[in-house]
Amino acid sequence: MGILIKNVTVVPMNSKDEVLEDTNIYIEGDRIISIGELKENFKIDKTIDGKNKVAMPGLINAHTHIGMSLLRNYADDLPLHEWLNDKIWPIEAKLTGDDVYWGSLLSMVEMIQSGTTAFCDMYFFMDQVGKGIEEAGIRGVLTRGIIEEKGQEIEKLDDTRRLYKSWHGNANGRIKVMVAPHAPYTCSPKYLEDIMDLAYELNTGIHIHLSETKKEVEDSFKTYGKSPIKHVYDLGLFKLPTIAAHCVHVDEEDIKILKDNNVSPVNNPSSNLKLASGFAPVDQMLKSGINVCLGTDGSSSNNNLNMFEEIHLASIVNKAVNMDAVSVPAITALEMATINGAKALLWDEEIGSIEVGKKADIILIDMYKSHLYPRHNIISALAYSVQGSDVDTVIVDGNIIMENREIKTLDVEKIIFNAEKVAKDLVNR
Amino acid sequence: MGILIKNVTVVPMNSKDEVLEDTNIYIEGDRIISIGELKENFKIDKTIDGKNKVAMPGLINAHTHIGMSLLRNYADDLPLHEWLNDKIWPIEAKLTGDDVYWGSLLSMVEMIQSGTTAFCDMYFFMDQVGKGIEEAGIRGVLTRGIIEEKGQEIEKLDDTRRLYKSWHGNANGRIKVMVAPHAPYTCSPKYLEDIMDLAYELNTGIHIHLSETKKEVEDSFKTYGKSPIKHVYDLGLFKLPTIAAHCVHVDEEDIKILKDNNVSPVNNPSSNLKLASGFAPVDQMLKSGINVCLGTDGSSSNNNLNMFEEIHLASIVNKAVNMDAVSVPAITALEMATINGAKALLWDEEIGSIEVGKKADIILIDMYKSHLYPRHNIISALAYSVQGSDVDTVIVDGNIIMENREIKTLDVEKIIFNAEKVAKDLVNR
Ligand SMILES: [Zn+2]
Ligand SMILES: [Zn+2]
Repeated sequence: MGILIKNVTVVPMNSKDEVLEDTNIYIEGDRIISIGELKENFKIDKTIDGKNKVAMPGLINAHTHIGMSLLRNYADDLPLHEWLNDKIWPIEAKLTGDDVYWGSLLSMVEMIQSGTTAFCDMYFFMDQVGKGIEEAGIRGVLTRGIIEEKGQEIEKLDDTRRLYKSWHGNANGRIKVMVAPHAPYTCSPKYLEDIMDLAYELNTGIHIHLSETKKEVEDSFKTYGKSPIKHVYDLGLFKLPTIAAHCVHVDEEDIKILKDNNVSPVNNPSSNLKLASGFAPVDQMLKSGINVCLGTDGSSSNNNLNMFEEIHLASIVNKAVNMDAVSVPAITALEMATINGAKALLWDEEIGSIEVGKKADIILIDMYKSHLYPRHNIISALAYSVQGSDVDTVIVDGNIIMENREIKTLDVEKIIFNAEKVAKDLVNR
Repeated sequence: MGILIKNVTVVPMNSKDEVLEDTNIYIEGDRIISIGELKENFKIDKTIDGKNKVAMPGLINAHTHIGMSLLRNYADDLPLHEWLNDKIWPIEAKLTGDDVYWGSLLSMVEMIQSGTTAFCDMYFFMDQVGKGIEEAGIRGVLTRGIIEEKGQEIEKLDDTRRLYKSWHGNANGRIKVMVAPHAPYTCSPKYLEDIMDLAYELNTGIHIHLSETKKEVEDSFKTYGKSPIKHVYDLGLFKLPTIAAHCVHVDEEDIKILKDNNVSPVNNPSSNLKLASGFAPVDQMLKSGINVCLGTDGSSSNNNLNMFEEIHLASIVNKAVNMDAVSVPAITALEMATINGAKALLWDEEIGSIEVGKKADIILIDMYKSHLYPRHNIISALAYSVQGSDVDTVIVDGNIIMENREIKTLDVEKIIFNAEKVAKDLVNR
């Protein structure tokens, strides 16, 4: 199919042009074919009027647990370890594949409605998430979170191996599979080594939680005499491409390790604030040349999957932390949520910017809103004023999956009904 | 007119009931007449179906400069003093009453669309804001910001006196006027005393900026040997009811003064973060029994007027600052944005909660949204998941001013057109 987005303002995130005013994007199949003038050889099946709209790359949520939407607003205002141990983990033990299917679809609806086109998920029953991605038309990395459990060590590795064989590359390449040791405090060094072997076998990347809380770092020093980052580095984990969620409590040595090994830390500002985990040194990591990207974490600790909130927070929170209003400027926060996320997901040759030859993962923002006037600076507007609900149209892999805020690929009513039903059933089970 | 909101979930913010499920609100004229069962003597002209909706008190933005929407996204990623001195103040010197009129109406559209029903504004050309309030049907406190200028000292006081006489109590009591010395660093002690005399003469309250930045506090110690708060306290300012915007850099003594004198500090989390001003000790002030309320500040330092963002931030930012996830829980953040704001604006006998006998300032949230399922906890949902755009219906003083997101009182298209026009003209003037 040929799609023409006409007379649109483009924020390509290509590190060359900040804003291209009043231009055109032509898409054929799953690719961006042309940006600029209209050409005679365009085969146009569908024209979208870009007046009063901004086209930007779809947002990339580099760390989440989308099945956890079932636990949204279930247990709030609690410290992380109490929240995990007493509330989340006991409930999660009762989850079924059907629960995760409906929770994941609910999250995909929410992500599409707020402009996210790709995500990196860590959870279990990941086949259900794969099924959801196929249906939703969105793009995602499936990672089966591995927590070491006596007697289930091999089973969990096999599950990831099977997941990879079943799903990697599926849905016209919209699905990837990576390997996800949950954290160094839930996997022993020996088990981490087995997990790394699996990643080598599958030739894929790693998704892990690192240095989220002060307690975690202190415990690591007690147990291993070093930080979680140094510990997994010494085990050789970073020889594999690694997405490291959080990296809140990191020191100079940690930052040097992350930089030297091309690790991509994922900043999750809402979750880190809400669980009182602390403030990641985002500005310092960015200035060291580290590819810091953005995520929402699960909507049980956020409590939504709105990446525009994370963009806003990544910028303003770091300004206050550093007492420097220039810290993490608007364009940098947008990069974190687009091209940096694409790099982390090993997908930057295909997505993360609007460029000729890349996959057409594009969102259109409806700028005809009271809070988006006047129009002094589009980049500032995107980072500081735009709301998730301003996303009007979402294109993934050249397919229009939302238009005028109407999702084309999913039965939203049915999903809301079933998600509510299984969630209520789950907490009473 | 008699309005019945039927089968609605009510979050009354009355400090007694957190949530009233499936109930009814009956409004007659400008007042709430009944909450609960339907009665035969209701004279119903209009019924609103409350299914899948939450009714809560309209939000109260206790500190803003609504005319500054014209400078939204005009000068970002700059430190406060540079931002004010080099960017904002030179442009503001060129503002006309017509500019302020359109900028203020644009802000009123945005506030109504995101659930704010009352605000405390500090700016100039305040007659234009009064005119706007009359038209919009919203509720507001007009305060003419007074910065000491040679030769204009008396003129500025007279302007406030005239403003009070022209507007205080107008629009069925929807408008109040208070006296607003901009800050202790822009008004000498002598001038502050003249301003206090005026407040006594008019028998009204004070609206002032206090201890926003570290520099301001350091300068105050250099000049007066004490903090801004101690300085104005010693001058007797706090004998008048006082709304104190910011109070970011406050010490133990300051907190004691604020408490002992019933001063209402206004936390402006977005603005304090974005301008790198710092973190106000909100939790500590609340625990001392201080009436901390919430504001957006101007949309040039925010960059929007969405009070749901401020609610979210007041809660999550303070958790991280205090390394305590229990800090500023959901219900407290909601109180800051409703009843606490009403107290600060000396309006809590009339607004700030949904209670029989109070004015009908009520917003309805459309809960039929993917990010508002499942429904484990309505209070958490309001503080952590609701977006400004989920506000469906807005009632102020018993009048429906927005229904199904359509504003009934204002010509939104015309306002956007004119605001954009005067803003572009302003920066090129
Ligand atoms: Zn996580
Ligand atoms: Zn202010």
